Parts: sequence; C-alpha cells; structure tokens
Amino acid sequence: MNKGLLIVLSGPSGVGKGTVCSVLRHKQSDLVYSVSATTRTPRQGEIDGINYFFKTREQFQDMIARDALLEHAEYVGNFYGTPRDFVDRTLASGKDVILEIEVQGALKVKEKFPEGVFIFLLPPSLDELKQRIVGRGTENAEVINHRMTVAEQEMSLIRYYDYAVVNDEIDAACHRIQSIITAEHCRKDRFLAGLEEMQTTSEKA
Amino acid sequence: MNKGLLIVLSGPSGVGKGTVCSVLRHKQSDLVYSVSATTRTPRQGEIDGINYFFKTREQFQDMIARDALLEHAEYVGNFYGTPRDFVDRTLASGKDVILEIEVQGALKVKEKFPEGVFIFLLPPSLDELKQRIVGRGTENAEVINHRMTVAEQEMSLIRYYDYAVVNDEIDAACHRIQSIITAEHCRKDRFLAGLEEMQTTSEKA
Repeated sequence: MNKGLLIVLSGPSGVGKGTVCSVLRHKQSDLVYSVSATTRTPRQGEIDGINYFFKTREQFQDMIARDALLEHAEYVGNFYGTPRDFVDRTLASGKDVILEIEVQGALKVKEKFPEGVFIFLLPPSLDELKQRIVGRGTENAEVINHRMTVAEQEMSLIRYYDYAVVNDEIDAACHRIQSIITAEHCRKDRFLAGLEEMQTTSEKA
Repeated sequence: MNKGLLIVLSGPSGVGKGTVCSVLRHKQSDLVYSVSATTRTPRQGEIDGINYFFKTREQFQDMIARDALLEHAEYVGNFYGTPRDFVDRTLASGKDVILEIEVQGALKVKEKFPEGVFIFLLPPSLDELKQRIVGRGTENAEVINHRMTVAEQEMSLIRYYDYAVVNDEIDAACHRIQSIITAEHCRKDRFLAGLEEMQTTSEKA
C-alpha cells in the first residue's frame, strides 16, 4: 500500500486558510485533519484526540524534549504543537493528512518533514488582503498597518513552498488543492517507491 | 499573461493513449492538440494545419535541418514530426498544448523541451496490457510476444517522466491528467515566473 501524503496548507493571516480548509474537509472526506497538541484547558464539548490532544505543561515539555512535535509555538500563555506520531501513523495507514498552519510554523514542519507537499494560499492581491483584514472591523489603523507589514513579509516566504494557490474564490481554490493532491499521488517517484515497496513485501511473503 | 504548458502524454503501445486523449479533448476544450507535420498524402477531408501540416519530403528535410521539429520519425516510408513553431506560438498565447506520442518520441521531445510535463500512461498490469494487445485479435503469438517485450522495455523508460497515470478506467485516468495540468499551473516556480514577467511588462509600459 502506498503511504499517504502530508499536505501543509499555509499562507498569510487573513487569506482564508480556515475557511478553505473546512470546505475542503466537507468535499474530501478521506482527508484526515492533523490534530494539534495543546496545554490549554478543554472547552465544553471538546474531545481529547479529536479536537486536540490535551496535555499538561510537563507532558508538552517532554514532547518537545523527545522531538515528538513537528513544530510548536506559544500563544497567549499556552503551547500548541503538531504531534509527529499522529501524522506518521495516519500516513502509514495510506491516508493523506492535511495540516493548516501559519507561515512560520509551516517552515518548521518543512525542516522535519521535507517530503510534505507545501501549499501557499495567496490573496488575489495585497489590496484584497487589506480589505479582508479591514472587513473584520475590529482593528484600528495602526493594527491594520502592522498586519499588512507582517503579511507582506510572510508573502516573501512563498519561495520555500511547492505550490501557490490563489484564493480568489473558495470553490476554485479547493478544486486547485484537490488537483494538487491527486497530481502528487501520480508523481513518478512516488509511484516507483510504491512499486518497490510492493515487490519487497511480496519477496518477504 | 502566463505561458501555457506543454503536456506530453506517452506510454507503451496498446495502453490506450489515443482513447484517453480523445476523451480528454472532449472534456477539456481549452487544451490544444499538437498538430504533426507529415510527408504522407492528405486523405479525403483532411485539412492542412488542422489534421496535419502536409509537407513535401524536401520541406520536411529542410525542417529537420533548421531544427524546426521537436522530434521526428519515419513510418512506412513517410516522415512524421512535431513542429516546434506551432507549440511555441500556442504556449505563448497562454494555452496549454497536449502531445500524444510513443515513448521514444517523447524522450526526444524532452531533450529539446525539458520544461514540458511528461506523463506516462500505464496499464493496470502487464497481464492487462497483453489482454488488450491480444484483444485486437489481428496478431499471431509471435507478434504478440514481440510486442510484449517491446512494451516491457518501454515501461522501464518511465524513469524519465514526471508522472505515472494508471489507465485502469478512462474517466479516472482523464481526471488524473486534468488534475496534473491544474497542479502544474499552481507550481510555485511557474507562479513566480509569471509574477516577474508581469512586473517586467508593467515597467516597460
């Protein structure tokens, strides 16, 4: 059986990663969403192993020490991270995993998992991104300008990615991502690796 | 405007390249089919520039001398080849070109056009390929065995291709090829090249 693919979906804040990811989840039910580990307290209805892997600070520090996370970051006093084990086990079962993550986190994942498929989600233009950030209506001009500066810096990191998908329209963006996943499964190198593994397995049998 | 892609669809004799190509043509009308040059006499209803570019032997030899063909071969006393100019002009207009060709020809195209997308169409298994060759019902055992030997040799050339598409079912194979085309348009390098060209054009304007 062929191994699954790790699909990393990233892009600047405000580009619509979350929305694209949830529509994709609806359209392609065989895609497994990476479950993060966190030290924050579970909210009502959240289930361990489904929404998050809930960890104590000590457990989380231990995972860092054991190199058991593909990336991690601290946010408002809590740790969040991507457990390598969940990704590895799901891929080994032949299923694809999708990880939605901000730009810096994606680059950390790439260091530990270079064989992943790294997709950068882009706004149709920087003006459009500004509209989306302004459109949230909760920020003042200074915050908006700061966000735009960060977004422009993040955009320059596209060079570390494999694919660029413009989020001009959600269904179109999802279609492009689904096409990328299908195409990556057809890559000759993956095909030959799968063939080799099949032969090795049948020789062992 | 982004340049189009040259899609080269190849695979062993009997794998169903022609059928897949004609279904694809029906499904994706914006894909332009490469028009071959030939020295053979036009058949009734064939139009120059649509079905083939009809050439004299002298004109064809001249095209070879001018390196105006991406590949060429002689078959039953006539020359056939792929004019580079038609491909270049169509790609420059932003349209994708598909070229259906046997395995050796595809490798010649790759020498002159390495930026093409090379897709190898595979039978579900060698047994299945034999069934398809036998199924034509016109060949004796010796011819069939020879064809199988050639097919096996051709299969080993898959390593020079970018993608492997199994032709288990025509619609599924077409879907995979369409996904590959969409994904290739999203490749970061092509995206950045398009961006750079846009900037150069606007600076010139």
